[in-house]
Amino acid sequence: MVSVAIMGHGVVGSGVAEILLTHKQKLYAGLGEEIYIKKILDLREFPDSPVADRFTKDFEEIVNDLEIRVVVEVMGGIHPAYEFVKRCLKAGKSVVTSNKELVADHGAELLAIAKEENVNFMFEASVGGGIPIIRPMNQCLVANNVNEVAGILNGTTNFILTKMIDDGMQFADALKLAQDLGFAERDPSADIHGHDACRKICILASLAYGRHIYPDSVHTEGITGITLSDVKLAKGFGYVIKLIGRVKKLEGGKIDILTAPMLVPFKSQLSNIDYEFNGIMVRGDCTGDVVFYGKGAGKLPTASAVVADVVDCCKHLKARRFLFWADGDGSNIISYKDSVSAMYLRLSGDDAEAKAQKAFGDITVANGDGEIAVLTGEMAYGEFENKCAALRADGVQVMSTIRIGDI
Amino acid sequence: MVSVAIMGHGVVGSGVAEILLTHKQKLYAGLGEEIYIKKILDLREFPDSPVADRFTKDFEEIVNDLEIRVVVEVMGGIHPAYEFVKRCLKAGKSVVTSNKELVADHGAELLAIAKEENVNFMFEASVGGGIPIIRPMNQCLVANNVNEVAGILNGTTNFILTKMIDDGMQFADALKLAQDLGFAERDPSADIHGHDACRKICILASLAYGRHIYPDSVHTEGITGITLSDVKLAKGFGYVIKLIGRVKKLEGGKIDILTAPMLVPFKSQLSNIDYEFNGIMVRGDCTGDVVFYGKGAGKLPTASAVVADVVDCCKHLKARRFLFWADGDGSNIISYKDSVSAMYLRLSGDDAEAKAQKAFGDITVANGDGEIAVLTGEMAYGEFENKCAALRADGVQVMSTIRIGDI
Repeated sequence: MVSVAIMGHGVVGSGVAEILLTHKQKLYAGLGEEIYIKKILDLREFPDSPVADRFTKDFEEIVNDLEIRVVVEVMGGIHPAYEFVKRCLKAGKSVVTSNKELVADHGAELLAIAKEENVNFMFEASVGGGIPIIRPMNQCLVANNVNEVAGILNGTTNFILTKMIDDGMQFADALKLAQDLGFAERDPSADIHGHDACRKICILASLAYGRHIYPDSVHTEGITGITLSDVKLAKGFGYVIKLIGRVKKLEGGKIDILTAPMLVPFKSQLSNIDYEFNGIMVRGDCTGDVVFYGKGAGKLPTASAVVADVVDCCKHLKARRFLFWADGDGSNIISYKDSVSAMYLRLSGDDAEAKAQKAFGDITVANGDGEIAVLTGEMAYGEFENKCAALRADGVQVMSTIRIGDI
Repeated sequence: MVSVAIMGHGVVGSGVAEILLTHKQKLYAGLGEEIYIKKILDLREFPDSPVADRFTKDFEEIVNDLEIRVVVEVMGGIHPAYEFVKRCLKAGKSVVTSNKELVADHGAELLAIAKEENVNFMFEASVGGGIPIIRPMNQCLVANNVNEVAGILNGTTNFILTKMIDDGMQFADALKLAQDLGFAERDPSADIHGHDACRKICILASLAYGRHIYPDSVHTEGITGITLSDVKLAKGFGYVIKLIGRVKKLEGGKIDILTAPMLVPFKSQLSNIDYEFNGIMVRGDCTGDVVFYGKGAGKLPTASAVVADVVDCCKHLKARRFLFWADGDGSNIISYKDSVSAMYLRLSGDDAEAKAQKAFGDITVANGDGEIAVLTGEMAYGEFENKCAALRADGVQVMSTIRIGDI
């Protein structure tokens, strides 16, 4: 029997407890031992829970309990999750978390402590919810150089964009619907401004390239500027607009990482990943493109990924699993101004087409409603910004600019 | 340093040697030890190979070499692969194979020997080439009851069907093109008759449900009967035709497994997996649908999956990894006649529509070229066959019948 504790009894935490109870036999068969929930930390009361007797409001009861070997952190947020996780690791307990904010902000430090203490720190559920991605990527990585990882990593924004694309809904209406359906939080800013997706691509990039990438070193754009006009014009060119987290390895070893809306070609496997679903493409030098698809959030999908990690921790109480990256200082990341991409623009004003052609050379043009849409060739983003500034100075209104993804 | 041997230096085998040599540093970083190719078994000569000095024609040199801890079997076919693998396992060596025929025919026995000898028998590359599927499924399985697995598991037939769907090519022309491009073998029968896809769904079903499923106990249909008319009529209804290997868990614990062409709805994630690509959907009770996509064959994709297994074996020379299923006698499989599905038919003859309606009740009908296409509701396949026989007796020509997949 392995005793575990769960810190947090919200959506994911209650799912973890549920799976540990309802899938008891299956877990026993897989592990050869029982997993026993010894304590659940939450400040609220849950008198109707089948494990009501195991609740505590005192973290010390968990960290000081020598029988508890694995601790699940599903509280969310940085404080006190960070302090609690650190103390659990230092107390020789393995920790499993679904907390992407924690991993993106403190992953390197917590992995280093886990290594020092010879325990495991696992976070399969922090990216892609129920989609297995951390382990398969680790596996792909063994015999592949990963040239690129690109993904639809946030279900809320993908739901909103899908509603705009498929049903012609306005952004604000689609956001409202997502909130009504429970796909978006009351305060949706971390989602719609791209911060959630950014944290996830940071975790995948840290894993792929071995050095911690902190979210504040990554250029991040959200989807609040995307209009129905853009959605329609993009469709006319054969693209859908998706919020993409992407990291690429460049020659010379540096990486190009960003989170931004992108035009994704219809033929891409990421183009028809719709609604609240997530999809992640890993481009290996041997495997080629491998894509993982599924529900990126939700109680049971996320909880089942947490439980898979718990089982892995229970199997490896003595032998540490290989999952590690070193700390990083951002020196391996190029400036977003040097990132090369083809671009989409929506323009209006006299002679906008001729002026755009003068600025960008070879372009593809489509006519919208008193405006034009333009696709350019590839250029560095800094150069693109300068050209946009020149266009504006020349009387052209630049209403939208969106990168075109080669994914 | 861990010494390994590779049996077979064909497409996959030469890829394995190549990755072990070209990704040496990466592998060293992942494993903390060097992987040394000590012997390569092949009856041919490869004087230009960078490891030309390690070739042998004598299997005994491998099985009797105590230093060799991991043996890669990439010869293909059953004999002598089966005998060699068995002897290697019994000699205390872990074995990695990409040979789906071997795993589908002898997996349970080889897994049992591996267990007895406390070594590993791994076969990630046997299904889905470079797509990680065996390990992620094992992981999904820990905290999920798998309700269904369905996949496009054969790149050759998927290439042919895609060419029929997208370019209106006839079956024979598409097959010829696939052969010219190297996506189909000179003798394509194992592919086009569904046997290759059947072996792979058998492996996944054995893994998912814990008892060996032998290919000859699985109803298998190929794609040679699919015509351009079917492709076009299916498209009109909102479906593409794909060769699907599928296993479903039924209430009462039995399983429904088959390999057959199916109408896949446009909205399914499997519908736009095209050309030589493979895609596998795993439907868990907690995760919901998770889909894995990538190149299902090819030298380096397959070889990189083999190498990932080799690394895992090297990491677990003493501790066996949990990958096991018991032998099976087919008693947990329902007859294909009891398998329930909605059906597509292509019919001609006087009053075909009225007669089909009489036979099947509620149907959806589309008019083809002097023929009609019909979609029925769900029924057991045996009942469907009886109704088709009655239709024929009533003067209706039944030109095609294809299952409709709820995937």
